Amino acid sequence: MRAARYYDRKDLRIEEIEEPELKTGHVAIDVAWAGICGSDLHEYLEGPITIPAAGSPHPISGESAPIVLGHEFSGTITAVADDVEDLSPGQPVVIEPYIIGDDVPTDDPDVDYQLSPNMNFIGLGGRGGGFSEKVVVQRPWVHPISDNVGLDKAALIEPLAVGYHAYRKSRAQAGNVALIGGAGPIGLLTAAVLKAKGLTVYISELSEGRKAKARETGVADQVFDPREVSIADEIRRLTDGAGADVAFECTSVAAVLDTLIDAVRPGGVVVNVSIWGHKPEVNLQSLVLKEVELIGSAAYAHDHPAVIEMVEDGEIDLAPFITGKIGLDELVSQGFDQLINNNDEHVKILVDPRA
Amino acid sequence: MRAARYYDRKDLRIEEIEEPELKTGHVAIDVAWAGICGSDLHEYLEGPITIPAAGSPHPISGESAPIVLGHEFSGTITAVADDVEDLSPGQPVVIEPYIIGDDVPTDDPDVDYQLSPNMNFIGLGGRGGGFSEKVVVQRPWVHPISDNVGLDKAALIEPLAVGYHAYRKSRAQAGNVALIGGAGPIGLLTAAVLKAKGLTVYISELSEGRKAKARETGVADQVFDPREVSIADEIRRLTDGAGADVAFECTSVAAVLDTLIDAVRPGGVVVNVSIWGHKPEVNLQSLVLKEVELIGSAAYAHDHPAVIEMVEDGEIDLAPFITGKIGLDELVSQGFDQLINNNDEHVKILVDPRA
Repeated sequence: MRAARYYDRKDLRIEEIEEPELKTGHVAIDVAWAGICGSDLHEYLEGPITIPAAGSPHPISGESAPIVLGHEFSGTITAVADDVEDLSPGQPVVIEPYIIGDDVPTDDPDVDYQLSPNMNFIGLGGRGGGFSEKVVVQRPWVHPISDNVGLDKAALIEPLAVGYHAYRKSRAQAGNVALIGGAGPIGLLTAAVLKAKGLTVYISELSEGRKAKARETGVADQVFDPREVSIADEIRRLTDGAGADVAFECTSVAAVLDTLIDAVRPGGVVVNVSIWGHKPEVNLQSLVLKEVELIGSAAYAHDHPAVIEMVEDGEIDLAPFITGKIGLDELVSQGFDQLINNNDEHVKILVDPRA
Repeated sequence: MRAARYYDRKDLRIEEIEEPELKTGHVAIDVAWAGICGSDLHEYLEGPITIPAAGSPHPISGESAPIVLGHEFSGTITAVADDVEDLSPGQPVVIEPYIIGDDVPTDDPDVDYQLSPNMNFIGLGGRGGGFSEKVVVQRPWVHPISDNVGLDKAALIEPLAVGYHAYRKSRAQAGNVALIGGAGPIGLLTAAVLKAKGLTVYISELSEGRKAKARETGVADQVFDPREVSIADEIRRLTDGAGADVAFECTSVAAVLDTLIDAVRPGGVVVNVSIWGHKPEVNLQSLVLKEVELIGSAAYAHDHPAVIEMVEDGEIDLAPFITGKIGLDELVSQGFDQLINNNDEHVKILVDPRA
């Protein structure tokens, strides 16, 4: 079968590899659509980061580069192992792409399995990936979806789960006011969750393309440009001086984090959803004097069923976030390069590994 | 009466001032003992910071420098206003030294009055202070204590409330493991609260004097020196690899905060009790990947009754934290200068404004 494999920085190859074999407890899936994630770009430009470099096998998967890429994907079941009794060929599914140690009780709702030692992702740490025709996945990470979702939109359920998890961590409630720093894919999808949950959503964003997208998709009540207004003052003005109840850092920019700390009310919550390649300077004095809670949010855990239900019920329409569809051969030229060079025109580009 | 008044940086004068007058809703108190706080030292060396500078009156108190200093104090009631029916002359009391707007419903347990606009402190923002013979305080900020507490130890109830508030913010429970960064007065008193609440307490501290104090007072199960061991590795070793449940930053040192983020378990809590004069670089990547919650804790609110009860019941013995007793004339020479130059030999120096 064809697959896109990561060998090293800027060395991504579309090649023929062997099909994965169905094993006990596993499900075989034909991939339908796979999204390109910001972390795929980071691996391509600056990696290997999360990907185990050639010769340094991952402690759980045992694999190292070359590694099949792609961790945001949907597909159709083609076969299930004899001991998998609750899924059948033909079912549309999405993957919660975890590689987690066998000793972690991932079915215990109190276990934060996303924080378990050596956690990695299918499509980054081994075990196949979405940028290939077929994948074989352990039963617990396969989530069936209704036919009405659409396999293209379903590929966005993984990043939507990142936003949903951040929402859960924030302890936000309907009627609250939220400020989101950054309208990239995660900022927009977090906004979509918050809006569906009944919050008032404000977004701070610099890029013209992303501001337009935030407005078009209807996920924000208002979008502000920090070059045009003082975001924190504006949020206070809109909340009778109180400040936002919750805020979400989706930019990895220190100045944005400080703005969010400034813009939330005393006792408010700032959830950090972004990944930091450097140690930012943070206005901790403001955090202390306002008793702000700064909460890290990492990926997702136990979130997929609720997220899938929101999409199935039409609470969130993922169609507006798909800004491109390409074939596997175009993965670099029409995918990675587009996102690197025309970043603010795109939200999510989907790849059809058969095209 | 005699009082120590702050005029400006390094300009603290012991002088005769008029006695405050008893007013409706107020209580007149003869100060017994007043502790010197780190923030008094900051005002002396680098201020005015919280103190309203001469000519810039505080919006609530209407006062500006010269201002009577001292916000950690105990005393005995000498008179109460006609409308104060639940307190009587002769009662020993401690002060919760707040200056808060009249429109804030401070008796509502859900109101975080310490976060209200323009909040300041008696002894920093006006309304008299502990480094004077007499003070007149609004009824809500006067807390009666049992005779068995001792007025000298009672002067430490204010900083103890800072530690208790941080404990409450941490949501720590009996049986949890806590790591405290720094064994200064607030670190030690926070440790005392945690120990009394049934936690295992570890302290990280560099200074020989403070390490000794942490050991002598019995507030820590173990005290570690970060020059001798990797604190985070040591905490993991002591917790079967898990890490501490909660940690408390009491140093204002960025490296210590990063150590605490490293040392807590995934999903753990770090409470920032310290005040930051600069914006530290923070390891947010670790905070995100471990889903750590970094919570600011500012002073106290609704905490004094519970703190007083702990002291009255003997759950915490404050005597070991008193390392000096001086008269008002010695405030600078035997108080401020001692704490500035021989910082690590002292925890709390108490001032008798009549001596």
